[in-house]
Amino acid sequence: MQRHQVPTPSLLLDLPAMERNIAVMVAHARRVGVALRPHAKAHKCVQIAHRLIAAGMLGPSVATIAEAEAMAAGGIDDILLTTPLVTTEALDRLRRLLLRGCRPTLVVDQRRAVEDLAAIARTCGCVLPLVVELDVGQRRTGCRNVADAVQLAHDVSGTMGASFAGVQAYWGHLQHLMPFEERERQVMEQGARVREFVDALRRSSLPAGLVTGGGTGTSWLDPHAAPFTELQPGSFLFLDSCYGAIPLTSRGNPLSPALFVAASVISANQPGYVVINAGLKAFATDSGNPLPLRGAPQGATYRFMGDEHGAVHGAEAAGSLPPIGAMIELLTSHCDPTVNLYDAFHVIVEDEVVDRWPIAARGYST
Amino acid sequence: MQRHQVPTPSLLLDLPAMERNIAVMVAHARRVGVALRPHAKAHKCVQIAHRLIAAGMLGPSVATIAEAEAMAAGGIDDILLTTPLVTTEALDRLRRLLLRGCRPTLVVDQRRAVEDLAAIARTCGCVLPLVVELDVGQRRTGCRNVADAVQLAHDVSGTMGASFAGVQAYWGHLQHLMPFEERERQVMEQGARVREFVDALRRSSLPAGLVTGGGTGTSWLDPHAAPFTELQPGSFLFLDSCYGAIPLTSRGNPLSPALFVAASVISANQPGYVVINAGLKAFATDSGNPLPLRGAPQGATYRFMGDEHGAVHGAEAAGSLPPIGAMIELLTSHCDPTVNLYDAFHVIVEDEVVDRWPIAARGYST
Repeated sequence: MQRHQVPTPSLLLDLPAMERNIAVMVAHARRVGVALRPHAKAHKCVQIAHRLIAAGMLGPSVATIAEAEAMAAGGIDDILLTTPLVTTEALDRLRRLLLRGCRPTLVVDQRRAVEDLAAIARTCGCVLPLVVELDVGQRRTGCRNVADAVQLAHDVSGTMGASFAGVQAYWGHLQHLMPFEERERQVMEQGARVREFVDALRRSSLPAGLVTGGGTGTSWLDPHAAPFTELQPGSFLFLDSCYGAIPLTSRGNPLSPALFVAASVISANQPGYVVINAGLKAFATDSGNPLPLRGAPQGATYRFMGDEHGAVHGAEAAGSLPPIGAMIELLTSHCDPTVNLYDAFHVIVEDEVVDRWPIAARGYST
Repeated sequence: MQRHQVPTPSLLLDLPAMERNIAVMVAHARRVGVALRPHAKAHKCVQIAHRLIAAGMLGPSVATIAEAEAMAAGGIDDILLTTPLVTTEALDRLRRLLLRGCRPTLVVDQRRAVEDLAAIARTCGCVLPLVVELDVGQRRTGCRNVADAVQLAHDVSGTMGASFAGVQAYWGHLQHLMPFEERERQVMEQGARVREFVDALRRSSLPAGLVTGGGTGTSWLDPHAAPFTELQPGSFLFLDSCYGAIPLTSRGNPLSPALFVAASVISANQPGYVVINAGLKAFATDSGNPLPLRGAPQGATYRFMGDEHGAVHGAEAAGSLPPIGAMIELLTSHCDPTVNLYDAFHVIVEDEVVDRWPIAARGYST
């Protein structure tokens, strides 16, 4: 199949561009001596997870038990679940994963979860490695201060069925912060708290084997801010327009866009724009409008027109807009929730569709 | 399974509430003498489509060829496809539907599509009923003026393989317009253009058998504005918070919410709010924040905190917020793109999960 023949709307994954992004991140991590545990919440795809391991990275970070199940079903066992698992239903699913021999590392931020997880591990005859999360300013999950976090680490260490594996710290609120110097300043400030946590653990004879966190927007800062042993970037694979618009290092942005939504012009009866078959169900809508690129005239803009429709406006004369039936490829403003809308990536090398990779962990219902 | 045992996040469909909404819409349509062709872009579910037919409605309107395929695979053949079908790939899929004996009615707004569709019908040995769309102020799809639309109707009528079936007019931009009197004024104004189109067709000896359009927000106005033979509301089934906040008739809103997202508290280390496992991937984000209801204290509010996280803030003392592991049910601000995120409805009668209905047409990739 050729690139212009995919059903629309569809996700196009530019394989050489993604491979370049992987190579950039691997080279960066080698240079600073940190491992990579790339976040599968961005791609939700077993084929991509395997490719990342083959490139020298660790197994995936995952955000949900459904993502852990999809990765385990795909033969990947080295998994870090970065969100606290607390519901009876999720714990049941964890139990089934453990009974199948999968040994994920889990994150905790409160005492009760430690007990619940350890109880399940004991019934499965195993010991669960648990990481204690420290909130580093996002005020989402994690212990609020170092003293609470150290106490929880000791609780983990003293609970049969659990072993203390280390520390998680994620500054999600800093990933896109501008200017870059302010992002750097706040990462260093929060990084000092991670260092304080790690030092306090060492002083209390409970060294953190694992220090995990970070993201695409701070990957070039994280290793200098805290003693991370591994980083969790995910969006670096695709580079959406929000990450594409900001510097990731003091010298700019070494990544390039690799993910596009292909849509088709379906109507052209209005002056100045054409209507395409991609709207609120085809793009994430939380971070602004997608950007029309290939197939659209230079400077074209997109506007949502409902669940299944959008308008592509020409910056120049209306005559330069593509005709009915033509394909337009758009860069999404936020890759993770856009990927979550589709069943598969159409994998592209130049003008050829070379593969179709299922987005195995998309959706939530079971 | 009990309501509080569903995996989270999940879609909960309150069956008695949906049945009441169906009964309200059926009674309204009977009273004014119009048929209902409810839009499956809202529910994407074969079980719901069958239930609507059993309640006395026509087969579904659908927005995409994927929705038509899902409905046909579910044994439903009486389908109106409300969006122009123009790409080679979509036309190929239409051909396969026709060869399986399905005979959908299609919408056109330009000459070339008439020829393409008729050519496919001829190769399949059938005649395709085509409806000509008139733009009624949304400036999305549809012929721009009545003269163009009449000309296109005659083009359809004169094309072997196509038959002229009637008229579509959809004022999507008026569905939520406030105050109600202004919505009414503009619907009447645009309705006059539909009437003009229908009259012009009659004068040119090409009567419109079908006059289709309208939506949930204008269902109580549409029959008085134009000679509709059928209406296409979809969201009336679920009543999201955007439709719930506005009057649908001059006397108020006769519908009630029937669709909720169930989420769980996963962390509670911050003062004034708890963190739940439902974020940008669990709700449509184009129309504001979801509203915490069952399980949350009176007056609670929701705030997005990333792809998999949200905060539920208590209006009262923090002590009244639910504990870790507790379930909170939220009303979505926009039902259609929220349904599109899930694989199934958990069908609820009071506290019991009585069924699980697949959202067969969700997603786009093939």
